[in-house]
Amino acid sequence: MIKYHNINGIITPVEESFVHVSELALHRGYGIFDYFLVKEGQPVFFDDYLDRFEASARTMYLDIPLTRAQLKTRIYELIAANNVPNSAIKILLTGGNSSDGYTPEKPNLMILGFMPPVYPQELLNNGYRLMTHEHIRDIAEVKTINYVASLLVNKKLRELNAHDVLYHKNGLISESSRSNFFLVKQDNTIVTTARDILFGVTRKHILTLAEKHYKVEVRDVFLDEVFSAKEAFLSSSTKGAFPVIKIDSNQIGDGKFGKVTLHLNSLFDTYVEKYISLNKKAI
Amino acid sequence: MIKYHNINGIITPVEESFVHVSELALHRGYGIFDYFLVKEGQPVFFDDYLDRFEASARTMYLDIPLTRAQLKTRIYELIAANNVPNSAIKILLTGGNSSDGYTPEKPNLMILGFMPPVYPQELLNNGYRLMTHEHIRDIAEVKTINYVASLLVNKKLRELNAHDVLYHKNGLISESSRSNFFLVKQDNTIVTTARDILFGVTRKHILTLAEKHYKVEVRDVFLDEVFSAKEAFLSSSTKGAFPVIKIDSNQIGDGKFGKVTLHLNSLFDTYVEKYISLNKKAI
Repeated sequence: MIKYHNINGIITPVEESFVHVSELALHRGYGIFDYFLVKEGQPVFFDDYLDRFEASARTMYLDIPLTRAQLKTRIYELIAANNVPNSAIKILLTGGNSSDGYTPEKPNLMILGFMPPVYPQELLNNGYRLMTHEHIRDIAEVKTINYVASLLVNKKLRELNAHDVLYHKNGLISESSRSNFFLVKQDNTIVTTARDILFGVTRKHILTLAEKHYKVEVRDVFLDEVFSAKEAFLSSSTKGAFPVIKIDSNQIGDGKFGKVTLHLNSLFDTYVEKYISLNKKAI
Repeated sequence: MIKYHNINGIITPVEESFVHVSELALHRGYGIFDYFLVKEGQPVFFDDYLDRFEASARTMYLDIPLTRAQLKTRIYELIAANNVPNSAIKILLTGGNSSDGYTPEKPNLMILGFMPPVYPQELLNNGYRLMTHEHIRDIAEVKTINYVASLLVNKKLRELNAHDVLYHKNGLISESSRSNFFLVKQDNTIVTTARDILFGVTRKHILTLAEKHYKVEVRDVFLDEVFSAKEAFLSSSTKGAFPVIKIDSNQIGDGKFGKVTLHLNSLFDTYVEKYISLNKKAI
């Protein structure tokens, strides 16, 4: 059980963690975040996530009030306070309290403990069903809190019995709501989209691992390519490489966890384990 | 001085008005709002704003936990508690506290008292300078809390000594960050944009008033039309009809508060006064 968050430097019980209603995230959607898993008390790919968090903050003109080392210390302190070895951390940096509801003053920095989502066994066996949706995220490369487009399609997702969206625009695929998208061609070449996406940390490592075993293409991907793919999968911090078995009414491959996806998922798991074990030794 | 807000039905001192950090507006930018002036204790164009607020809520699948009559009562109670006859109200409806940071549970409804902005005399005399910016807001017709695009251009606005943006896309103008846009042609025809905008309540009433005195065109407006306009102005709840005297490096008209804009502004002021006086009699 997660008991504590850190709100602007103060370790605070979850049920007492509040922000003032003048916070600009509430009024203007002004905020960025990042989210990573914690395994055996160690943040997974810690510097990758902090690199991206710092880059998002710079693009959005939000000042992080801490150095990298101070931020790491604060995160480790929260992990220790919660004492849940396998969990997750969200760092949330927002526009801060504003007396007029528009002008930024001083950002609020929240470090929040979470339990990572548990995916039902059926999903793990069978994978995701995606619904295509024409949309491109604003400043897609920055992890802003703006998820309005994905919230708006939730009702349609439920109606169509799909798990998530696959965004595309002008025939080009970009990403899912909180995951990157890959496909595996009939000759086992691994293809992923190159632009108008959030550059996932999991995506990065899967690409590095994939290059050792497969031909890899990072490029524009057309919607109609997807339907002739042998396999398709999503990558994300919580899912690793996760199979997609249906896109709209089209079954991908044989509708099961594909061999290449399974292989990459296993390579990725091993790579995470190695990262954690090296990191623990370093401490 | 505004002393109180109403948070989920409870009149709360401003300094004690908080939301929990699990609020979906913080995590996913999930929220809508509306904002209107209060004059002599009366909300200006009350039903127009509540119409729009309810429409925004419907589009975003957010349930308002009150009937129109109950919402009005709650707002009047807050106005009475603050006892500031000339002020403003923001109603903010957000995704609510969510245990996983993604799945909506029960919306939070905040009714917030504000003092309306006071524009410096120089601005009132001389008007706004706008900077054109290529962008179109997502679901522009809904008053969501997503203002990321306008926050991102703030730095450039300051550098160019401009007050606000004028959004355009594919050669077509839409709106400013928090105002609608009008221009006055050399023959005094009043023109405003027809789509990809938030349909302003002030815009609506100014159009109705303008039609009694001028030829009015509501249609697509091209960026290059703007530079040959006799006058240009913005409309908003807090500004009425407000002159624009420069767009990028182009002076509009003679760079002063134009005659037609001044006329419309005066017609609008009179119309607001009449609304308030009729409303007070009705109570």
